[in-house]
Amino acid sequence: MKLADMQKSDLEAVEKQLLGEFEALKGEGLSLDMTRGKPAPDQLTLADGMLSLVGPGETAGEDGTDYRNYGIVEGIPEARRLFAEYMGVTPAQIIVGGNGSLTMMYDTLAGAVLFGMPGGKGPWKRAGAAAGSGEGASKVICPVPGYDRHFAICERLGLEMVTVPMLDDGPDMDAVEALAADPDVKAIWCVPKYSNPTGAVYSQAVSERLAKMTTGAPDFRILWDNAYAVHHLGGGPAEIPDILSLCEKAGNPDRVLMFGSTSKITYAGSGVAMMAASETNIADAAKKLSFATIGPDKLNQLRHVRFFQSMDGILAHMEKHADIVKPKFDAVEEALSRRLADKGIADWTAPQGGYFVSLDVMDDCASEIIRLAGEAGVKCTPAGSTFPYKKDPADRNIRIAPTLPSVAEIEKAMEVLCVAVELTCARRLLGRNR
Amino acid sequence: MKLADMQKSDLEAVEKQLLGEFEALKGEGLSLDMTRGKPAPDQLTLADGMLSLVGPGETAGEDGTDYRNYGIVEGIPEARRLFAEYMGVTPAQIIVGGNGSLTMMYDTLAGAVLFGMPGGKGPWKRAGAAAGSGEGASKVICPVPGYDRHFAICERLGLEMVTVPMLDDGPDMDAVEALAADPDVKAIWCVPKYSNPTGAVYSQAVSERLAKMTTGAPDFRILWDNAYAVHHLGGGPAEIPDILSLCEKAGNPDRVLMFGSTSKITYAGSGVAMMAASETNIADAAKKLSFATIGPDKLNQLRHVRFFQSMDGILAHMEKHADIVKPKFDAVEEALSRRLADKGIADWTAPQGGYFVSLDVMDDCASEIIRLAGEAGVKCTPAGSTFPYKKDPADRNIRIAPTLPSVAEIEKAMEVLCVAVELTCARRLLGRNR
Repeated sequence: MKLADMQKSDLEAVEKQLLGEFEALKGEGLSLDMTRGKPAPDQLTLADGMLSLVGPGETAGEDGTDYRNYGIVEGIPEARRLFAEYMGVTPAQIIVGGNGSLTMMYDTLAGAVLFGMPGGKGPWKRAGAAAGSGEGASKVICPVPGYDRHFAICERLGLEMVTVPMLDDGPDMDAVEALAADPDVKAIWCVPKYSNPTGAVYSQAVSERLAKMTTGAPDFRILWDNAYAVHHLGGGPAEIPDILSLCEKAGNPDRVLMFGSTSKITYAGSGVAMMAASETNIADAAKKLSFATIGPDKLNQLRHVRFFQSMDGILAHMEKHADIVKPKFDAVEEALSRRLADKGIADWTAPQGGYFVSLDVMDDCASEIIRLAGEAGVKCTPAGSTFPYKKDPADRNIRIAPTLPSVAEIEKAMEVLCVAVELTCARRLLGRNR
Repeated sequence: MKLADMQKSDLEAVEKQLLGEFEALKGEGLSLDMTRGKPAPDQLTLADGMLSLVGPGETAGEDGTDYRNYGIVEGIPEARRLFAEYMGVTPAQIIVGGNGSLTMMYDTLAGAVLFGMPGGKGPWKRAGAAAGSGEGASKVICPVPGYDRHFAICERLGLEMVTVPMLDDGPDMDAVEALAADPDVKAIWCVPKYSNPTGAVYSQAVSERLAKMTTGAPDFRILWDNAYAVHHLGGGPAEIPDILSLCEKAGNPDRVLMFGSTSKITYAGSGVAMMAASETNIADAAKKLSFATIGPDKLNQLRHVRFFQSMDGILAHMEKHADIVKPKFDAVEEALSRRLADKGIADWTAPQGGYFVSLDVMDDCASEIIRLAGEAGVKCTPAGSTFPYKKDPADRNIRIAPTLPSVAEIEKAMEVLCVAVELTCARRLLGRNR
């Protein structure tokens, strides 16, 4: 029964019962952390074989090049070949770099701000710098809810964020197209597969519209962060459109910059990151990189290539990840269904991959729920984190990150979170303040 | 005898003889590369033991933290301790990062341009951006000859370079102090030990003046690139002043940013880089980093710590490097002395460490000498590389990088280079054009 349909006295009884449950859970002195999308130790252990594959005397590449020395800014050819297949591009369309795609994304936007992008008319404009000039700052479209670190980069660099709703098959394209007509709108953030945090997978129709749409800025970029390309929960990776080809066909070959990494395939601190795009964009990125590095850690790239050997090797490896991660997502779904279904106070996603479940609660309740859960020893990502400037206008989105804790810990944490949701919403319906 | 004191007919005879030598060398079809300061393969092999020290089950830090996962932006505590000793600071005064100090230096100046530095009044001004505003660009003092990649970063970022002469004990401090009084002058590049390319070692007096001098800019920074801290040629590392303490004592604790790396200790592509400075500067750098990374490759840091164990371990390791590198520098010195001494056409340095010998020839001859050497199959760093904007106003400095080739190759390459020097200078004295 929906809580909103209850008699006041019934709702008061519910509140009382929930408060008892909450106090009991609080009394257990829990300390559980559901804040970040970090792999669990047993996921990391899956890649431990990698550590023994580049030993003394095993440091030369396929053509004999000594990978212990300086050079090869774009990454070793073996790795460019393997990860070109992973990203669905040619080896000339990829740079394989260091240990984090976040660094590549930051450097890309910082580079756009400092030097501009191919096809553009100069550096992108920063809010602070633009303030004095009378010109508008460059803007970035952010589907919401979205990834906090994408938003943090924009805020840091003074790129103004404008939001569009995230739907089940990608962003609301009517809203995107309307915004993109503005010449100051320079980019859109996309996590096309198992989107952070909703789990949405971009459809062919959405991707085609992104590739084809008229943009006011000649150097508009789709920032296609394919962070979860192979990170399924047991059903195999979802198919997503080949956005680079769609952009090429639409006559906008330089529109998309794709990012990926093995941070959640091998090691979250010692993976390899990659950026894929048109050869024009790759040449531009390599030039920008050449001032800041004499080359990436090629031995770590070699470890990866030797460990996986092929795309099939990567896919087989991800089946093992799915075996570990799936029961955790199941535990989240079980708790949410059992406690919150049909009460009219919450909706949530059922992702087929990725690292998050997105929970939407009654308006103006998310902050209080997270505060309450924290009081009972369950740390959740702060409310607002999934929105630009950390401000969820409806205060309703909660990101659940189930990969790091054990199933038993998730069961307990979800019990706390669900009680906090019910209690907060019941109180709100009773007209109580926080 | 000095070439300049010769009779014209004698000089013509010398020219003829040299031309014969040159043609003979050219006929050998050489292909030798003396362009970059890269370690030789046997130097790299010294560190191969490192590759076996972090295997499966060996990935936890001293406090049990799983170094395979995300986090620890400032570097693992073990590495911060070891490299704090290496850099002569406390563990709280260092960030240990990825595989290149060049990246840290680029990021530092890009960060200054985008966000400013502690103690300053805002972002540093770029030449391009300043052009429209009527304000002057920020300037960086560059002792010359110096390191081409330092200069490339400044040029790229639009930081104007102003030069001062590099003397035997550091930059000409009268010139430095005069420039530093200008509020637009924001920094000075220093390679304090075995300077690139002259091999100079900064004296106490120079370092004290750098620490104490009055600067027009409140956020003036000494960019102290201690790239060759332990890279001696057999006599043990030279002592250099403790610049951070000198700055502290002078009341300018935030004035210096120190950089270092193991690129020329372990592997040139898979080392670890570090930045050391006051805690204020380190906090600022860590904040800037936190938008661009979730942490460095901690396993590679762990490899380094386990391989060296202590500063003594690093010092013992560098003795082995010296054994390999010293004969190469000796071969350079032998050729220069034998062929060029007392001819009045060249001076060169006799470094006690580092990666380069600096050769100054007669004015307006360096480009032609390098062209000639190239014609005979010996690739040298392009003339002008050791100066900002690649312009050596006197066209006289040649950087010799002897580490990568074998001794036999160096002997041959030096023969070519010396003949090219003599031939070019003789022709110049004969009044011939190129």
